[in-house]
Amino acid sequence: MSLESSPFLLACRRQPAPHTPVWLMRQAGRYMPEYRELRTRHSILEIIGAPELAVEVTLQPVNAFPVDAAIIFSDILPLLRGMGLSLEFVAGDGPRIGNPVRSPADVDRLAVPPAEENVASTLEAVRLASAELTPRGVPLIGFAGAPFTLACYAIEGGGSRQFETAKAFMYEHPAAWGRLMRKLSTLVADSLMAQARAGASALQLFDSWAGVLSAADYERYVGPYMTSVCETVAATGVPLISFSTGTGGYLGTVAAAGGDVIGVDWRVPLDVAWQQVGDRAIMGNLDPVLLKAPWRELRAQADDVLDRAAGRPGHIFNLGHGVLQHTPPENVRRLVEHVRTRSARAVVA
Amino acid sequence: MSLESSPFLLACRRQPAPHTPVWLMRQAGRYMPEYRELRTRHSILEIIGAPELAVEVTLQPVNAFPVDAAIIFSDILPLLRGMGLSLEFVAGDGPRIGNPVRSPADVDRLAVPPAEENVASTLEAVRLASAELTPRGVPLIGFAGAPFTLACYAIEGGGSRQFETAKAFMYEHPAAWGRLMRKLSTLVADSLMAQARAGASALQLFDSWAGVLSAADYERYVGPYMTSVCETVAATGVPLISFSTGTGGYLGTVAAAGGDVIGVDWRVPLDVAWQQVGDRAIMGNLDPVLLKAPWRELRAQADDVLDRAAGRPGHIFNLGHGVLQHTPPENVRRLVEHVRTRSARAVVA
Repeated sequence: MSLESSPFLLACRRQPAPHTPVWLMRQAGRYMPEYRELRTRHSILEIIGAPELAVEVTLQPVNAFPVDAAIIFSDILPLLRGMGLSLEFVAGDGPRIGNPVRSPADVDRLAVPPAEENVASTLEAVRLASAELTPRGVPLIGFAGAPFTLACYAIEGGGSRQFETAKAFMYEHPAAWGRLMRKLSTLVADSLMAQARAGASALQLFDSWAGVLSAADYERYVGPYMTSVCETVAATGVPLISFSTGTGGYLGTVAAAGGDVIGVDWRVPLDVAWQQVGDRAIMGNLDPVLLKAPWRELRAQADDVLDRAAGRPGHIFNLGHGVLQHTPPENVRRLVEHVRTRSARAVVA
Repeated sequence: MSLESSPFLLACRRQPAPHTPVWLMRQAGRYMPEYRELRTRHSILEIIGAPELAVEVTLQPVNAFPVDAAIIFSDILPLLRGMGLSLEFVAGDGPRIGNPVRSPADVDRLAVPPAEENVASTLEAVRLASAELTPRGVPLIGFAGAPFTLACYAIEGGGSRQFETAKAFMYEHPAAWGRLMRKLSTLVADSLMAQARAGASALQLFDSWAGVLSAADYERYVGPYMTSVCETVAATGVPLISFSTGTGGYLGTVAAAGGDVIGVDWRVPLDVAWQQVGDRAIMGNLDPVLLKAPWRELRAQADDVLDRAAGRPGHIFNLGHGVLQHTPPENVRRLVEHVRTRSARAVVA
């Protein structure tokens, strides 16, 4: 089977597929014993920095479950290191940037190195993983953080509930904010293009924190940069997924910024989301907590997502955010198998 | 001026008011030097437990700014102590419940004491504060946590980004979840009714974490209990504000559950929100971070909120969530004065 006729890539292009393709954000991760075993010997940054390890982790869920796509194992934050920002992952506390951006002068000091230099190990991992996956007919997704989410981390210096420091910077220094977002957009677009050249069959932008913004602020402070990334990447011909969370109140604005597929979280019903998104493919949107729930509940809610998509071409089944730690792998298997089986029955050829 | 003709209560009833009434959630709090001074001598729970101190804090913003309503100084969590749950506020880490609900048997052990016993000091504070405020024509708002948000804390045992433990309990033990929500609804409704009897002119339900749910889960696991609280409280004739955050994707579902006024956060444009909410008053919805932004930005965005309300009767200006720590009090004053002045010009008599 050629990759182009894979259910996942058909759905990205809104063409009818033999079943609703399904993959899960963070399908490789701590909930898998294989991954935890590897992590006893290597840190996250070590795995990302060693292409053969990154490939091993990328393939773990593909070997364990019949998912319709793989996603390269990496993280959105290593991109920032090339700008001159220090990054570490503190156990139990998440990412920490030692020298966050706090002034316009800090913005102007940030470098914009080419992806080949900045994320060389991930590009090599994409090359190796796609060589493994292509003969198996499994498309590989490359990704990057969206400029806004990266700016949030760069300014805040770590995770946050509301990213108040980042938003205050945005309001106080609109010109420097623009310069920061342009630098990030360049880095992000360059990284995505390089991943496409290295063999990625699809690309995804993760805008996990877009939901801290109002629609008007998204439109003014974020949208133009997203559009610039999407337009640049469109030249590759590789479909681009624009994923965000907490944006259920203004998905039309998010979709207007660009992307072939709009990824949505569980806080908005899929049919309502699709109406806002318009003529675009859609990805989502089961609450990740349901993978810890009893099967009757998990199945009922997965069915509800499928029913709301109504077999319309262009639906990629996914969670509304990443797989949670302590998720039973058996539930992932049952969900993936169920989505494929049930949607195969529902498709009208 | 009688309270009933105050701009705030007119707006609650969707009657034309001489200006758009404005008050701010958490308008009494750490950003005020007067409050911080009191906190050097008393803990939060001490202030809540001493009616004269709670009244002092309640009046601080009313004395400092021309706000159109006061809200009794209290917290949503002390209600849980009467159920048999231990509560402490850990500096820098927020609330902590030492013996959270983790099994159906835990639910059945929870007591449901009457409000007069459970929140006696808050009721006394409402009596004293309303006696002070009524001659000044300032309505006093009483409040309680909404059953879902209280259940989140009771099960999770503290704050959380996604309240995964609470949601997993809800899915795994739907019958015990129902019993928990019924107990909480009884406590909440009883507390609100008692506050109305003690002199509160309006009441508010805080459902700060409703936004972690999907619309379908809100409808099934939360809506019926909200409706029960709203219907019980309606007998008092006192208007009820139903406030939630992160629900921009399904405000129609939230509004359908009840409430005279629907409080919305900044993640959905006010006009879009009002369309979903329908024939109800609306409260909101400026991003609290803007109170730290330069005045040009703060004013522009406050004007945008007012413009989206378009002078339609039934708009209460507020933030989309509480005032943040380190907010300059001067910005609160400018915002409150600006909203009153600008909306007074805009009203057509």
